[in-house]
Amino acid sequence: MADKKNKNIILTGDRPTGKLHLGHYVGSLRRRVELQNSGKFDEINILVADDQALTDNADNPQKIRDNMIEVALDYLSVGIDPDKTNICVQSQIPALHAMTFYYMNMVTTERLSRNPTIKNEIHLRGFDKAGSDGLPAGFFTYPVSQTADITAFKANCVPAGEDQEPMLEQAREIVRRFNMTYGEVLVEPKIMLPDSKAALRLPGIDGKEKMSKSLGNAIFLSDDAATLKKKVMSMYTDPAHLNIADPGHVEGNCVFTYLDAFSTDQDFEGTDYANLDEMKEHYRKGGLGDVKCKKLLIKVLNRILDPIRESRHEWEKKIPDVYDILKAGTAHAVAETNETLHEMQKVMRINYFDDDSVIKEWQDWIER
Amino acid sequence: MADKKNKNIILTGDRPTGKLHLGHYVGSLRRRVELQNSGKFDEINILVADDQALTDNADNPQKIRDNMIEVALDYLSVGIDPDKTNICVQSQIPALHAMTFYYMNMVTTERLSRNPTIKNEIHLRGFDKAGSDGLPAGFFTYPVSQTADITAFKANCVPAGEDQEPMLEQAREIVRRFNMTYGEVLVEPKIMLPDSKAALRLPGIDGKEKMSKSLGNAIFLSDDAATLKKKVMSMYTDPAHLNIADPGHVEGNCVFTYLDAFSTDQDFEGTDYANLDEMKEHYRKGGLGDVKCKKLLIKVLNRILDPIRESRHEWEKKIPDVYDILKAGTAHAVAETNETLHEMQKVMRINYFDDDSVIKEWQDWIER
Repeated sequence: MADKKNKNIILTGDRPTGKLHLGHYVGSLRRRVELQNSGKFDEINILVADDQALTDNADNPQKIRDNMIEVALDYLSVGIDPDKTNICVQSQIPALHAMTFYYMNMVTTERLSRNPTIKNEIHLRGFDKAGSDGLPAGFFTYPVSQTADITAFKANCVPAGEDQEPMLEQAREIVRRFNMTYGEVLVEPKIMLPDSKAALRLPGIDGKEKMSKSLGNAIFLSDDAATLKKKVMSMYTDPAHLNIADPGHVEGNCVFTYLDAFSTDQDFEGTDYANLDEMKEHYRKGGLGDVKCKKLLIKVLNRILDPIRESRHEWEKKIPDVYDILKAGTAHAVAETNETLHEMQKVMRINYFDDDSVIKEWQDWIER
Repeated sequence: MADKKNKNIILTGDRPTGKLHLGHYVGSLRRRVELQNSGKFDEINILVADDQALTDNADNPQKIRDNMIEVALDYLSVGIDPDKTNICVQSQIPALHAMTFYYMNMVTTERLSRNPTIKNEIHLRGFDKAGSDGLPAGFFTYPVSQTADITAFKANCVPAGEDQEPMLEQAREIVRRFNMTYGEVLVEPKIMLPDSKAALRLPGIDGKEKMSKSLGNAIFLSDDAATLKKKVMSMYTDPAHLNIADPGHVEGNCVFTYLDAFSTDQDFEGTDYANLDEMKEHYRKGGLGDVKCKKLLIKVLNRILDPIRESRHEWEKKIPDVYDILKAGTAHAVAETNETLHEMQKVMRINYFDDDSVIKEWQDWIER
């Protein structure tokens, strides 16, 4: 491996706790494919974070194993190209465990407790509820593990939403502390925020802030056309818009939020509108029914999902190939992260068996 | 490796933060040699716990590297026989990092906070002091790492003092939780308490409760005869025993505590006493000076330390051999602990690349 300094290296990934959905597509997948094909990066790594998934699913490992293949299929279907992007399995990369172990010495429990992302997630999962079993130590410390994921690849760039900024700040603190204590080995990662509003968080079809499998409000990339239709038809719109003639709100109206995120002017060819703005105006004024809007959205989403479905269908027939892609990507990651770990062990003075040079050191020490 | 169930396996070890002293000898080393030579154990492992030493010495790795050889020399000098006992270096055993990682999901932060041994050690190190940098996460969670050390070898027996019982209780809880969640892989360890009073904690030469390098009150196994003499002559006795004729106290009097721990009736041949009890009686009555008692103690300690010094002297000339012993012991430990880790990964369902059987599973899952 050549020197990784001054290289542009991406690390990103997902917990394999469910199939990926439109929220993932808008929030990260679409962009990853763009970044992959931009030619601007020396290396792109996508980690299927099964170890991280275990931190709050310790008692359901089969779910993670099943969703490993779902997530891999989703990646390949949206256009992640294993020739350009390294897809790897977290649990099979030993250096990540070692780095997590050593980074634990670079951070205090007080600092981990102050991480607002973790605070929020602890609350979401009810680990702070009276009567709960309590906070698993592995979950409490997962920002440390995430720092290992990023730094093991010497990634300088983590494409993520604003809510992940505290995680990156934690990672940078650990990197600085390590480099200061032992020597300059690690690279400080920066977050790469989405460049447009449309790439921000997609609400669920029930209008709730976040699309999520566990909330049952998600449209999956692998949903067929019939399922998609049913979901869009049940979508949350404007509860005050009772009759077609009534004026309607487009703000907070899922159908329009989704059209904002996915439609282009071309999608309006053959409709009564030149573009989305005109359609919105009609809806606001009154006289435009939800069903008509939903039908357009279905068309738009099928335009996006059809090629993904088709690709997925092909990949589903080639599971052994998907397996080989994960295996090869992981082998590559193992070699690369072991190199980083090795550099760390060297500056930490715990590289006893690299060669026998410590013998001379020890002889001098004893004779001092 | 044959099935380890129903085998008697020991795991023990030390942090390499300083040379070993008489406190270690009385508290553990002497006993380890006895256990090693008893023939009652199928396997004995001694871990030089450099990773654990880093949890509260993160910024001083050279100290740990230097003391790795000191501790190894101390082991060999007291009679630890590498043909019977496996001496290995913690940081070089990757399975320990992985197990620590997964055990973090088997324990809550609340439970870790309740560990009285850790509470006490946090206080001793001042991590709870106002103005301190705070508690390193690695130190807070080191009982989890210690559980990995023990269980990786499937040790059922940990020779240790009573103060370590909360650590063993924590280890057993993690073992039970893991076995219940994933399947019976791990062995519940038991503590093996010292069988005599004499094997309990040795005070420092200043009379303070604990002999310790950092308190500057230790007699090291590697101290030469002149250093030993100086230290014993400065030893804390009975502050009320001002004149030889005065009655003296033997309780809390270091010289007598040490004689209790080390002398035998044979040591009194050629003295005015048949045994230690007679000597104590004289001291209590008055008329026996401290110097006379100290001289006897010096003789007793030299009887014990002379062969250790001699052996150390020989080993110091053979540092390459010591290096090879550590390297071979560690290689053995790596193989053995990888086997345990592998069993764990299997029941945790994260053994994707062992063979390609997951392909069929995934095909069935997709077609379900």
